[in-house]
Amino acid sequence: MQTNEELFLTIENYLAQTDFPGEPELLYAPICYSLAGGGKRLRPMLVMLACGIYSEETQQALTAAAAVEVFHNFTLLHDDIMDNADTRRGKPSVYAKWGQNAAILSGDAMMICAYRLLAEVPEQFLPKVLKTFNEMALEVCEGQQYDMDFETQQKVSVVEYMHMIELKTSVLLAGSAVIGAILGGAPEEEQRKLRRFAIELGLAFQLQDDLLDSYGDERLGKPLGGDILEGKKTYLMITAMSHASEEDRDVLRYAYKDPHLSDEEKISAVKAVYDRYDVRGLTEQQISLRFERALAQLQSLDAAPERVKPLHDFAVSLMGRMK
Amino acid sequence: MQTNEELFLTIENYLAQTDFPGEPELLYAPICYSLAGGGKRLRPMLVMLACGIYSEETQQALTAAAAVEVFHNFTLLHDDIMDNADTRRGKPSVYAKWGQNAAILSGDAMMICAYRLLAEVPEQFLPKVLKTFNEMALEVCEGQQYDMDFETQQKVSVVEYMHMIELKTSVLLAGSAVIGAILGGAPEEEQRKLRRFAIELGLAFQLQDDLLDSYGDERLGKPLGGDILEGKKTYLMITAMSHASEEDRDVLRYAYKDPHLSDEEKISAVKAVYDRYDVRGLTEQQISLRFERALAQLQSLDAAPERVKPLHDFAVSLMGRMK
Repeated sequence: MQTNEELFLTIENYLAQTDFPGEPELLYAPICYSLAGGGKRLRPMLVMLACGIYSEETQQALTAAAAVEVFHNFTLLHDDIMDNADTRRGKPSVYAKWGQNAAILSGDAMMICAYRLLAEVPEQFLPKVLKTFNEMALEVCEGQQYDMDFETQQKVSVVEYMHMIELKTSVLLAGSAVIGAILGGAPEEEQRKLRRFAIELGLAFQLQDDLLDSYGDERLGKPLGGDILEGKKTYLMITAMSHASEEDRDVLRYAYKDPHLSDEEKISAVKAVYDRYDVRGLTEQQISLRFERALAQLQSLDAAPERVKPLHDFAVSLMGRMK
Repeated sequence: MQTNEELFLTIENYLAQTDFPGEPELLYAPICYSLAGGGKRLRPMLVMLACGIYSEETQQALTAAAAVEVFHNFTLLHDDIMDNADTRRGKPSVYAKWGQNAAILSGDAMMICAYRLLAEVPEQFLPKVLKTFNEMALEVCEGQQYDMDFETQQKVSVVEYMHMIELKTSVLLAGSAVIGAILGGAPEEEQRKLRRFAIELGLAFQLQDDLLDSYGDERLGKPLGGDILEGKKTYLMITAMSHASEEDRDVLRYAYKDPHLSDEEKISAVKAVYDRYDVRGLTEQQISLRFERALAQLQSLDAAPERVKPLHDFAVSLMGRMK
């Protein structure tokens, strides 16, 4: 059996040798650029690891693993246009490098390439896999729409926020795990448990992402406080808003756009409010809760523990990055 | 058997009752708006008519017919952003009405909705239908890319132009006809002939579109000369460039952006060059040639003439609009 590191390399190699047409160059060059941009390959890892619980035939899941990764990267291409984002994984975004029209059209082609990879799964699994993929893909768009809606929405509740990140982040992880399970021949009850696992893992992962932006380790190279300076409605911000006094809420609402404050002062002002209501602790609690629920789903699977272990270990390593 | 008018209404009704989720509203409202915008429903008609040659069970092709129409409308949403087009079928484009981000994201959701409809075809046909759809969809993107490339490319040959419109227009008609044939249970040789039929029909259709922009009937409500004023590289323009003297070429190259000329004068100047080289006649010849080739493919089908007749009549009515 492959170690998780070997599996990661298998996915990298498969993506690297995936054949995209060469012409017209402006259409396909951004696709290759985007896929070569690295990342954790979290979603294809979930496909492969979920499949591996139920089957030795994980090779037949590679094409679906590549499909979810290509789809994920397509969403980044279009998100970067909508968010006006110049940088992605430390490099210029496709939008910044080739312009908006190229990012739109290459993104479209990329989504189609994802479906082309998906169409390669063994025929007996195709109807179910395609249906799962479609529902997942549509929900990801819904999540992005809610995320954009929130920017102009004055009040966002914690429940609304959790629903948004479930759609925007968790659903793609859940779809990946379920597709892997289907390809491994898992019964529906098992697919449902893996879905719940990935939904909770995704929530924990996204909340941790929110947390690290304010309380991460600056030595990791990413400057802290980016979300605060953008006035983004993160879990921390929304939780703070729901606990803070009217005066503190004004800080949360207005500090980031106060022209009299330096960036550092803005971040300090907001974090002082966070600290006053132990927003860090509340967020960590929520992360732990979600992560424990995820692991509990894994433990409830009808499979030998050693078959589940690689997926378990992968989840732990994913969440362990903050320690 | 349904008449073509009844078939058109069946498609309209099916599209009207197709269920899209209601929330988030900004994501789905543009999809409904775009699909309600009318049009000839050319592509779904081809699916249904091709299916009807080989099978009485055309109802089972309705979902695929809707899929190609939804896909086509998705391409219009994104094309309108890339082309900065404010109007579509006499109404504000989605891009103009809801803004760029909505047009990007709703377009994405729309493409996924197309795949969702496609996934409803009978399971035994799904692998072949999905593959055909994917190849078609990717080629449409390639066509749009070449079309955009041509805007900045100084010289475009007739061969390059025909290749571009084959990708941008014909391929979607061809995919529609082939998918219909697959769902009707047609043998592969028949699928190939229907593909050739639709490719040629699409070329004739697109060239006629080019022709009508300069030589159409103004009473039909569309102002003439729009392509000329945009300096667009149409079949007429490219043909004229390949025949004209150096002096006349300069008119073709520069008249449309000459600040001393009124719109009317620009159009007259370019059309005078067209007339000098009988560009209208050359284009009409090419249209006739392509259309005859299309009909010859229909005649070569291994099916009773009365089964082919509805598709034949539809093609004739489509091309008859200029007379």
